[in-house]
Amino acid sequence: MKRVGILGASGFTGAELLRLVAAHPEFELVAATAHSQAGTAVADLYPSLAAAYGDLQFGDNDGDLADTFSAADLVFLGLPHGASQELVPKLVGNVDHIVDLAADYRLADASLYPTWYGEPHTSPELLSEFVYGLPELFRDELHGAPLIAAPGCYVTTSTLALAPLVKAGIVEPTGIIVDAASGVSGAGRPPKDNTTFCAVDENFTAYGLLNHRHTPEIEMAVAKHAGTDVQVLFTPHLAPMNRGILATCYARPTGDTSTQEVLDLLSSAYADEPFVVVNERSPSTKATLGSNSAHLTARVDPRTGWVVAIAALDNLTKGASGQAVQCANLALGLDETLGLQAAGVFP
Amino acid sequence: MKRVGILGASGFTGAELLRLVAAHPEFELVAATAHSQAGTAVADLYPSLAAAYGDLQFGDNDGDLADTFSAADLVFLGLPHGASQELVPKLVGNVDHIVDLAADYRLADASLYPTWYGEPHTSPELLSEFVYGLPELFRDELHGAPLIAAPGCYVTTSTLALAPLVKAGIVEPTGIIVDAASGVSGAGRPPKDNTTFCAVDENFTAYGLLNHRHTPEIEMAVAKHAGTDVQVLFTPHLAPMNRGILATCYARPTGDTSTQEVLDLLSSAYADEPFVVVNERSPSTKATLGSNSAHLTARVDPRTGWVVAIAALDNLTKGASGQAVQCANLALGLDETLGLQAAGVFP
Amino acid sequence: MKRVGILGASGFTGAELLRLVAAHPEFELVAATAHSQAGTAVADLYPSLAAAYGDLQFGDNDGDLADTFSAADLVFLGLPHGASQELVPKLVGNVDHIVDLAADYRLADASLYPTWYGEPHTSPELLSEFVYGLPELFRDELHGAPLIAAPGCYVTTSTLALAPLVKAGIVEPTGIIVDAASGVSGAGRPPKDNTTFCAVDENFTAYGLLNHRHTPEIEMAVAKHAGTDVQVLFTPHLAPMNRGILATCYARPTGDTSTQEVLDLLSSAYADEPFVVVNERSPSTKATLGSNSAHLTARVDPRTGWVVAIAALDNLTKGASGQAVQCANLALGLDETLGLQAAGVFP
Amino acid sequence: MKRVGILGASGFTGAELLRLVAAHPEFELVAATAHSQAGTAVADLYPSLAAAYGDLQFGDNDGDLADTFSAADLVFLGLPHGASQELVPKLVGNVDHIVDLAADYRLADASLYPTWYGEPHTSPELLSEFVYGLPELFRDELHGAPLIAAPGCYVTTSTLALAPLVKAGIVEPTGIIVDAASGVSGAGRPPKDNTTFCAVDENFTAYGLLNHRHTPEIEMAVAKHAGTDVQVLFTPHLAPMNRGILATCYARPTGDTSTQEVLDLLSSAYADEPFVVVNERSPSTKATLGSNSAHLTARVDPRTGWVVAIAALDNLTKGASGQAVQCANLALGLDETLGLQAAGVFP
Repeated sequence: MKRVGILGASGFTGAELLRLVAAHPEFELVAATAHSQAGTAVADLYPSLAAAYGDLQFGDNDGDLADTFSAADLVFLGLPHGASQELVPKLVGNVDHIVDLAADYRLADASLYPTWYGEPHTSPELLSEFVYGLPELFRDELHGAPLIAAPGCYVTTSTLALAPLVKAGIVEPTGIIVDAASGVSGAGRPPKDNTTFCAVDENFTAYGLLNHRHTPEIEMAVAKHAGTDVQVLFTPHLAPMNRGILATCYARPTGDTSTQEVLDLLSSAYADEPFVVVNERSPSTKATLGSNSAHLTARVDPRTGWVVAIAALDNLTKGASGQAVQCANLALGLDETLGLQAAGVFP
Repeated sequence: MKRVGILGASGFTGAELLRLVAAHPEFELVAATAHSQAGTAVADLYPSLAAAYGDLQFGDNDGDLADTFSAADLVFLGLPHGASQELVPKLVGNVDHIVDLAADYRLADASLYPTWYGEPHTSPELLSEFVYGLPELFRDELHGAPLIAAPGCYVTTSTLALAPLVKAGIVEPTGIIVDAASGVSGAGRPPKDNTTFCAVDENFTAYGLLNHRHTPEIEMAVAKHAGTDVQVLFTPHLAPMNRGILATCYARPTGDTSTQEVLDLLSSAYADEPFVVVNERSPSTKATLGSNSAHLTARVDPRTGWVVAIAALDNLTKGASGQAVQCANLALGLDETLGLQAAGVFP
Repeated sequence: MKRVGILGASGFTGAELLRLVAAHPEFELVAATAHSQAGTAVADLYPSLAAAYGDLQFGDNDGDLADTFSAADLVFLGLPHGASQELVPKLVGNVDHIVDLAADYRLADASLYPTWYGEPHTSPELLSEFVYGLPELFRDELHGAPLIAAPGCYVTTSTLALAPLVKAGIVEPTGIIVDAASGVSGAGRPPKDNTTFCAVDENFTAYGLLNHRHTPEIEMAVAKHAGTDVQVLFTPHLAPMNRGILATCYARPTGDTSTQEVLDLLSSAYADEPFVVVNERSPSTKATLGSNSAHLTARVDPRTGWVVAIAALDNLTKGASGQAVQCANLALGLDETLGLQAAGVFP
Repeated sequence: MKRVGILGASGFTGAELLRLVAAHPEFELVAATAHSQAGTAVADLYPSLAAAYGDLQFGDNDGDLADTFSAADLVFLGLPHGASQELVPKLVGNVDHIVDLAADYRLADASLYPTWYGEPHTSPELLSEFVYGLPELFRDELHGAPLIAAPGCYVTTSTLALAPLVKAGIVEPTGIIVDAASGVSGAGRPPKDNTTFCAVDENFTAYGLLNHRHTPEIEMAVAKHAGTDVQVLFTPHLAPMNRGILATCYARPTGDTSTQEVLDLLSSAYADEPFVVVNERSPSTKATLGSNSAHLTARVDPRTGWVVAIAALDNLTKGASGQAVQCANLALGLDETLGLQAAGVFP
């Protein structure tokens, strides 16, 4: 059994980690800490965890973290952006493996933080030590890795769809459009004006027009895999559903191509992946809900020439905590699929 | 009072017409007919109409239609595609005004029907007599018009967003992407495998990839207004909501432009329109639900250059039956806004 | 035209009043005020009202209200409970008609306020001057009434179902169970932990167990109509929908009765009501959405003897603002149905 | 590893069985058959199962079932009511363990079938050989059992809430009201007029008034545990959600009692149960979604005297296929919790 801790366990990605850890045959929880919810019973905040965790309370993020997690083989961080930068340095050197779910250590180029996140990075020297946690594209670096920055939902979805096409040179790396829709859990647990039921249900709307923070990360992740600079216009939308991301990506072909060629290329790229399904079916978020799977398809439009690649996954599982567990399995030398479902919850 | 009839009143657009007619201060219903539901009480099929229509039953589509609607000043047709072609010729000459909500008389070029609808048109000689019922762009032709083909939801949404930009020459007329999401009512009332609650709820998925029938109609409507050929890639998605369409449209600028210029152009184009709102707010389907309003915005991305124009409306009202009533008001010489709400139902 | 004002217009009942006033052929808005939202554009808070109200801003609740509403024939109050008690005394005598949508002047017995609302009433002398605004049961008192306390959603629903049965002596007035479900808009606009989309969607749960504040008001309203003391156990549930209330009420018969007798009794009680539908169909919230209608049915179980009466309506329309407009029409001597839809928005 | 088969695998309970079998560490699937879907790829009907089952196709229900399932240690039947009666006799004697999810072998009294299901039972001689598969109440009979009839969602929910109270004599066994709400998946996969998204979403309605088929089964299950005749009025409602059942049950106390006493009684009854949570929190369907857990609470109303007991669970898991797997584990001598999650999927 491996001993794992969760720092920042009271948000949605933290709760999803708790769910997955409870079902993982080789994980044992040593501590789950929180900031404002320290001392709260896990089951009072998340009744869904009542039968699995009984009377467990959230510990305190603000204590001596090296001490809190001293027994842990691996610590997951489910903190809001910015908070990870403050706490990770306290853990590095004291814990063998860290998997951060925030954006704090995802961008390799520290200069992007002031532009897209409004503030300079406070521990830029650590950026180069983190491995980018997208196993399907960067698995080699993840085996035994001590420091992993797991990508988020929009980036995972878009990158799985686009990276093999850009790498193969079949589409232009610039002028790409990513038009995506997300469920509401992507906005986190704390109530906001735009995440109430009455704001969201029976509604569909675009947000973050032109300036969503995940834009440079999509560009970085695709570029890192493809070995060429990438430029993307990213338009996220909010859909009236709990979980799920679907990205419909449009790119210009570099020459003659066809639906069959693009599908073959994606199928081949992911042929051995336990969690990636490629075929002609139009992916649906619901088919992936609760699982660690990603579903992909593609088309080439003979009329306009556009290459269309579509991917769907569960933003809290493959787009966050499931991917983090997948990375943790790799870091700890376990079977990569342990504790993760391939089948979606909804029929 | 004007006397109106509804031929094909048992589908969703028919039911929406019944709702709007009940609230119209100058409309009096003379008959509402149906095919398979002939003889059914309106309130048994649509309990929402119980208080408004009491014991009214659907009449029969299959009888002598000229007789059934002999007292009508205007007849709306809420039939499935193909059925209108069969029945419209029976009414032409017997009824002063016809507003058809199907696609049967929307495409001016008869040769497009075999390509996109799979069958040749059976009364192509009537195509040129129908006026295209999008008042904001083609109002002049609608005053007193005897034959009107009202456009559907995707076309109205996309065309309102794109037509002024193409006409002004601010964007290229080809290579345009329309990425849209629709509520489920767009698929009609009869139950289908892909419209059950369990298929749709908590789901987001693309459909009709590359070959949706409304593609040529979007191209035609924008071209008709702009006076230039137009080419569009249209990707519709199904969102887990009852009503509403949102189209996010991407076009290449023809030269330097800016968000402000594009917003000004749209604002100016629709300055006097009672049902069109243009501003910087990101449009939401919910804000338009139950109303005849369309909400628009636009952006120009300084990084990639793309012009993004977004529009939202209610697919059953401004995208179907509300627009049909708006056209009917114009055809009958009434105030264009009579019986139509500008305010959405949901706060 | 009658000039109306709305005090407390930024909440959901206020927004619904604005929607209904915009569609009312005899109402002209003189002022819409708010507390924390004073100075906000109505359309920024409620984009659904953009086309109807343009650039209108919320005025200020905190100013000289007699002055703000000096031109009004009637003022609606859409305030949270407790706030009405503070502001109503400032308007009484300065405005001819007041329709309060809060609970502040609904309970005739001032001693119930400390028990159920936690604080004594601050203007108990006004309680006896308010008329209870449920037109179907107390219409006579509403014609020309200067002060009206309009009942809320749960009370209207339950009372319409139960009052005629208790009055007729066909069921026992005690031991009654009201098991009801409400949409989320009943909880108001401000975001709360239990009204986020992720808390509510795909969820069904009971709340306010044994102690919901509307319990004594249901008892009072039924008792007032029936002329006998009434005792109710009320269990509200939260359903994943925007709007709508459905109450399933259980009462013991006083003697032999039958489904037909109970249906006949309800049909007869509401025979001339424009907004009440009684028949064998099981009422559904969706059929009433956006309308001012209430749908009712009833059954008598031959096995257990229980009488079951079920009612559904839209909590923001017939359960709040629509009923308030209905009362206002009566108070102002207008046709009671003006500006109110009998047909629901959803097919 | 135990070899299991699924007869009738194409419906929702079949798909849920496939999901659970894929995650079960000791189950190996030998065959999954269907009637109208024989030959269909599992992943075409249920894309959620694509990553777990690859190209597996449904086999044929209509072949030689003894042969199809000859390698199976246990066969689950996920058939519609009536179909099980036809097929079970072909398997009895050829398969060591059968777990039937239909109602066909749940009612011990064959005479109830004509009354509630409209037709006499075709193999009444087998009724007495089936064990009722509700482990929390009847575990002793399930160890090694060859023939198990697993109860459905409404019965499991209501019975877990009521049976300990009736058995303890704390409430009257007659005059009980079960007022329940279910998600739409309870109605099965095939599309129906009343299960389309547009029929269900934003809707709440009662159905099966007075005559729902699960009424006698609730009575039987509670009576079997409590050892006394039981009489229930059962009113199910349809809520706009995919999965989940919540039952709010009302019973008359036999003497003085209190919320604390009733909670203590339920807590004590389920103290050692891995899947039952009892506390003061109001149960919510969402907290149980995707898990095999049931959440319970209770109250005693000092005003009216009513005892209120509330239970929630996932209708497809603890209310169907999860319970069937729990029974299968017991029948096969495995750890009862194997392959079943205690934690709900939604945070």
